[in-house]
Amino acid sequence: MRENRIRTIWGQGEAAINGWLAIPSSLSAETMAHQGFDSLVIDLQHGLIDYQTAVTMLQAISTTVVTPMTRVPWLEPGIIMKLLDAGTYGIICPMVNSREEAETFVGACRYAPKGYRSFGPLRALMYAGGDYPQKANDTVLTFAMIETAKALANLDSIVSTPGLDAVYIGPSDLSLSLGCEPRLDPVDPKVVAAIERILDAATKRGIKAGIHCASAAYAQKMIALGFRFTTVMSDNQGLITAARATLGAMRQGATKTA
Amino acid sequence: MRENRIRTIWGQGEAAINGWLAIPSSLSAETMAHQGFDSLVIDLQHGLIDYQTAVTMLQAISTTVVTPMTRVPWLEPGIIMKLLDAGTYGIICPMVNSREEAETFVGACRYAPKGYRSFGPLRALMYAGGDYPQKANDTVLTFAMIETAKALANLDSIVSTPGLDAVYIGPSDLSLSLGCEPRLDPVDPKVVAAIERILDAATKRGIKAGIHCASAAYAQKMIALGFRFTTVMSDNQGLITAARATLGAMRQGATKTA
Amino acid sequence: MRENRIRTIWGQGEAAINGWLAIPSSLSAETMAHQGFDSLVIDLQHGLIDYQTAVTMLQAISTTVVTPMTRVPWLEPGIIMKLLDAGTYGIICPMVNSREEAETFVGACRYAPKGYRSFGPLRALMYAGGDYPQKANDTVLTFAMIETAKALANLDSIVSTPGLDAVYIGPSDLSLSLGCEPRLDPVDPKVVAAIERILDAATKRGIKAGIHCASAAYAQKMIALGFRFTTVMSDNQGLITAARATLGAMRQGATKTA
Amino acid sequence: MRENRIRTIWGQGEAAINGWLAIPSSLSAETMAHQGFDSLVIDLQHGLIDYQTAVTMLQAISTTVVTPMTRVPWLEPGIIMKLLDAGTYGIICPMVNSREEAETFVGACRYAPKGYRSFGPLRALMYAGGDYPQKANDTVLTFAMIETAKALANLDSIVSTPGLDAVYIGPSDLSLSLGCEPRLDPVDPKVVAAIERILDAATKRGIKAGIHCASAAYAQKMIALGFRFTTVMSDNQGLITAARATLGAMRQGATKTA
Amino acid sequence: MRENRIRTIWGQGEAAINGWLAIPSSLSAETMAHQGFDSLVIDLQHGLIDYQTAVTMLQAISTTVVTPMTRVPWLEPGIIMKLLDAGTYGIICPMVNSREEAETFVGACRYAPKGYRSFGPLRALMYAGGDYPQKANDTVLTFAMIETAKALANLDSIVSTPGLDAVYIGPSDLSLSLGCEPRLDPVDPKVVAAIERILDAATKRGIKAGIHCASAAYAQKMIALGFRFTTVMSDNQGLITAARATLGAMRQGATKTA
Amino acid sequence: MRENRIRTIWGQGEAAINGWLAIPSSLSAETMAHQGFDSLVIDLQHGLIDYQTAVTMLQAISTTVVTPMTRVPWLEPGIIMKLLDAGTYGIICPMVNSREEAETFVGACRYAPKGYRSFGPLRALMYAGGDYPQKANDTVLTFAMIETAKALANLDSIVSTPGLDAVYIGPSDLSLSLGCEPRLDPVDPKVVAAIERILDAATKRGIKAGIHCASAAYAQKMIALGFRFTTVMSDNQGLITAARATLGAMRQGATKTA
Repeated sequence: MRENRIRTIWGQGEAAINGWLAIPSSLSAETMAHQGFDSLVIDLQHGLIDYQTAVTMLQAISTTVVTPMTRVPWLEPGIIMKLLDAGTYGIICPMVNSREEAETFVGACRYAPKGYRSFGPLRALMYAGGDYPQKANDTVLTFAMIETAKALANLDSIVSTPGLDAVYIGPSDLSLSLGCEPRLDPVDPKVVAAIERILDAATKRGIKAGIHCASAAYAQKMIALGFRFTTVMSDNQGLITAARATLGAMRQGATKTA
Repeated sequence: MRENRIRTIWGQGEAAINGWLAIPSSLSAETMAHQGFDSLVIDLQHGLIDYQTAVTMLQAISTTVVTPMTRVPWLEPGIIMKLLDAGTYGIICPMVNSREEAETFVGACRYAPKGYRSFGPLRALMYAGGDYPQKANDTVLTFAMIETAKALANLDSIVSTPGLDAVYIGPSDLSLSLGCEPRLDPVDPKVVAAIERILDAATKRGIKAGIHCASAAYAQKMIALGFRFTTVMSDNQGLITAARATLGAMRQGATKTA
Repeated sequence: MRENRIRTIWGQGEAAINGWLAIPSSLSAETMAHQGFDSLVIDLQHGLIDYQTAVTMLQAISTTVVTPMTRVPWLEPGIIMKLLDAGTYGIICPMVNSREEAETFVGACRYAPKGYRSFGPLRALMYAGGDYPQKANDTVLTFAMIETAKALANLDSIVSTPGLDAVYIGPSDLSLSLGCEPRLDPVDPKVVAAIERILDAATKRGIKAGIHCASAAYAQKMIALGFRFTTVMSDNQGLITAARATLGAMRQGATKTA
Repeated sequence: MRENRIRTIWGQGEAAINGWLAIPSSLSAETMAHQGFDSLVIDLQHGLIDYQTAVTMLQAISTTVVTPMTRVPWLEPGIIMKLLDAGTYGIICPMVNSREEAETFVGACRYAPKGYRSFGPLRALMYAGGDYPQKANDTVLTFAMIETAKALANLDSIVSTPGLDAVYIGPSDLSLSLGCEPRLDPVDPKVVAAIERILDAATKRGIKAGIHCASAAYAQKMIALGFRFTTVMSDNQGLITAARATLGAMRQGATKTA
Repeated sequence: MRENRIRTIWGQGEAAINGWLAIPSSLSAETMAHQGFDSLVIDLQHGLIDYQTAVTMLQAISTTVVTPMTRVPWLEPGIIMKLLDAGTYGIICPMVNSREEAETFVGACRYAPKGYRSFGPLRALMYAGGDYPQKANDTVLTFAMIETAKALANLDSIVSTPGLDAVYIGPSDLSLSLGCEPRLDPVDPKVVAAIERILDAATKRGIKAGIHCASAAYAQKMIALGFRFTTVMSDNQGLITAARATLGAMRQGATKTA
Repeated sequence: MRENRIRTIWGQGEAAINGWLAIPSSLSAETMAHQGFDSLVIDLQHGLIDYQTAVTMLQAISTTVVTPMTRVPWLEPGIIMKLLDAGTYGIICPMVNSREEAETFVGACRYAPKGYRSFGPLRALMYAGGDYPQKANDTVLTFAMIETAKALANLDSIVSTPGLDAVYIGPSDLSLSLGCEPRLDPVDPKVVAAIERILDAATKRGIKAGIHCASAAYAQKMIALGFRFTTVMSDNQGLITAARATLGAMRQGATKTA
């Protein structure tokens, strides 16, 4: 089976650098896949992307060695299994708030006897290879998002869920849930403390922690703290950043038609 | 009829700042439309965009005041008229190499007696208003691309084509045609001289000149020269720029997992 | 934040006139948006429309001042939140039969601390403006459909759900559930009585009531009763009505080839 | 081979009643196909429909006995042949202005030795039956649009083109070309005279004449004159008509919230 | 109402021969519909197909007399009802493991008072006819998949669920759940025994049993045992089989360029 | 630049084994790409595939080492250049009947000074590598279809067109044009003689010959004759073959419900 490069990176003690896809297009996905990210997450939750488009994006990423991942809209087994069959190598599930939810999530990603994932990996077989049925359980990554006060309250029971590979922090939701303004790269001590607590809990249980960042600087700080999966940029935000930089430069120039 | 803001900008003696769309997605188009460009060109030639997707992108741009334009794949009346009916406010036609081609192009964009455009402006009526049939001929912009040695040879006859509003320079093709490496923001004296010659010819005939640039600095230089329509950024290239900047910053940081 | 015109209309003591979209096309949506409705509901339940198409329809409606709304297929948080992120200004949720379901529904539409909506309003930010995070909870409308005997039994507890803005009556399902033939513009006394009871309950609790009608006459009667949101026409039914009228006129004419 | 019902209707001395599709959706197409038209034209010229969507619309129409037709964007062999392979039973070609253009058009619709249509009727074989290769030349209909002054000047040579089955009048373009306002159901004597002249010329040559109408009344008049194919309604216009009727009725009612 | 041919076949004591669709394309669906299957299942679970594409596939199948069926991704009422409204004549629901789940499933497929299906059969009305509201409950087929050890434990209570028409066996999941390798056409005695037990239980309760096969030989054996619905081929697997046969023949030929 | 494996195979004196794609789906394309063909042709002429879908199919093929090729609908520069920009490694152009047409075709595929292809290889750069601008002219393959009596008459002038890499025979059109029934794997002596004549002419001029076959047996015979590119199977026909084999086996079995 084709390796999961995130696992390989982790095995080398390194952190994976992840890109984020919110634009529903296989072309922007392929462009992002050529820039040097270790992995790309197709976001079916807050991205404007649905399953049928996501399949073409998975194909676009598969033209490269970048590891294809997906975030699902919600803890719903139907879409989780569909994306796994389509060849995603990891699922990020939003708002996992309890051990029971974590088990439901992980179970949807694992074949029996480890879970209840239904068998029919049509595209996954092509992408991963003929031994996918035997090795998928050990290759596909499961990330539970810890992003609410309730999840914090249940943190230890969640991170100790058998088969869970990692937690992923959504700083905006975590901030909101803790009574702060929703934002990425948070600096509010309450939120920062929660982030560190989540990292600790995951690390102690031997699973990895990931976090959604908006800048390289913050991501580097998080990696230094111990995070092993950092999102550093999204396609749509990159577009905005680039456009603003260019238009800013235009306005700073001499009178337009001197 | 809704104004063509490029004409308004020109009327004020200013240059229009244009963005370029190569990604086939109404979401990236809408995102670009919110950044402050005066106009956006949906590129059906080198962009990976076909008509059906272009319609949704025209709609996305129409959620803002940005002027929607399109570049067609080739001088073919079918697609030119389809895009006009869909509400585009300007057509950029590649490789217009002779007066005859210029007339064929302009004629496809104008209703009789000025041209041979067929009548049926279904979406254009919604976008522009009920007086579109009366005012379209004076509102819709026609840009002929001057980008070959042959077009240079026929330059004066092309720029004097009745109904032609502007020329648009594709520096890569122009460079190639003059025996240079294809590139944007060209500095080769042969190409630069050709660019200035085209600008001159257009200006003398009282029509505008536009040029495809890859940087704000070059665009500003072109505006200073007299260009009145400069493309300063494309969506796909913006994505690449932003990703490289972020990944470069990641690599420049301290050891990833110090 | 861009106003929710339905709230504005309600603030003026008026009723909103709503159109219904069942055809999966951004063009028919844009056409409908130009006819003068106050709002349009994209129906992802009984309409043949899925999320990816709905996004292009939201964009099409956003080219006008018409308020964009959506009906979701079922009480499932994933699709509710995806549509909110895509910029819908109201969610109609089918078959809300209990207080618990009403709370689950409303919670999915509200950011903490009022609910559990996850944060990431990508397109909503563009459509509504930069203060969407602060004002969304007070702008986005929540309509719970009351259309079963069970919902009638739980009526008071449903309409008193904090954060619920309105109820919406589906006369066909309500009729079926009460043992009558499914139809719009119902006249069966049992159904009419239920409709009035729902209106009463909502009004007493200070929330609004809406109803799905098939004719202007019935809608006007409902408005006179106190309804403040009436659907008066769907795109697909309008197509049928228009075609039948034309073909009927053809048949009533003189012998076709006299 | 499945019959071409338009030919059958003509064989009975009757006129075919045609509907028009401008909305790019297989659902609106299927809805229209259930209303009782003899044929439906998918408009790839002024409709907002491209080939890939048109295929799904041809399939939708094929769920009924309605004859599927298409109008192409322009006299371009590529799209004509693609639509024939996809199973259309008739092609309407815009702006056929000369005998040479008429021959180019008809040739694209006929297999050798009658024309130069390339062989590969993939979906047509499924729709029409296994003897399509033998019978297509005699079944598929060719309509040349006569809608310019130039075409009028060449009228007799056009209508006598071997293999041409019918002419089709676009009153808007014809009006424009004759110096009148573009409109359907024209009453200007100059346009009316041209319409009658076209009908005469076609009839004398033994081919049929069709015309694009906007009302049953006008269509009936045209049939009485001798037209044997009348478009009586388009989907998008039907939608507008129905919406305006409903909203007009709402406004005419008592004060909205008396 | 248009008959459900599977019910008709069953009424004649015969078994229905079913084809399987995993490719998201209305063209491959239409091609399959012309080959002679009694029914076709559009697989939204393991197939790479989502709702919007499934609608065009339902239309494609509706160009023939083949009965259109669908498998849903999971026991989620939203997608079940959407597919019924779109005109599917049967739903196969995966992993129905208990009586409660079976009731939830069947209820989603039936109008009150037999279930809680919401009313709005837009395309179903066109496909089935105007009496769909009255007859749908008795026409649409419900298949519960029995494919886990848990379902086996609850077998009798599941098969006796009122309104359930049939069970359907997924041999791969059943094998996995029983500790065997996932495969079709299973021969492991443990799995074969379970298959026979399911058939028996269904037969005793007077409902039908179906099974997913990979070969005609196995399907015939299953029919001989008493199964009345056998899937004998999927589109994607058919493609693989055909390609391998051709490429194998190429390799067995003489040296390629002797 | 990524090699063109067809050129590599030719360099080894071997023949390339080609598969054909007529189904508009990136999934069936990816499935075909995993079966062992040397190259795959996406057929935009007789296949039911348009540009936007073709892009996703090119991406799907690019997940493997299979060489991606396309057949265009007609000799129209717009679509030829769009497909080249999208990364196709070869263009097959139908009905090239004269030297002038051959030059128009080849010129559209080559950058100046060898041709007039416009510069903007957005996806091609990603697929092929950064030196695409320098090497594309020598890598991309041009196939002119010889399939009419007129092309036979101009055979020598066509095959000697500078920059033309190969001819490709469409036996159905060739048969039709010679007065025979259209079919693949032709045996009519007149057609066979023409095929051999084309092969001879190409070989003498030092370019390759390819042919569209329907069976491995015929393809092997053609390779033995000297053809160096043989299409041996299409996706849609493969589907039909597989379905017929399975359903035939079902019918040959014992009584269905003995």
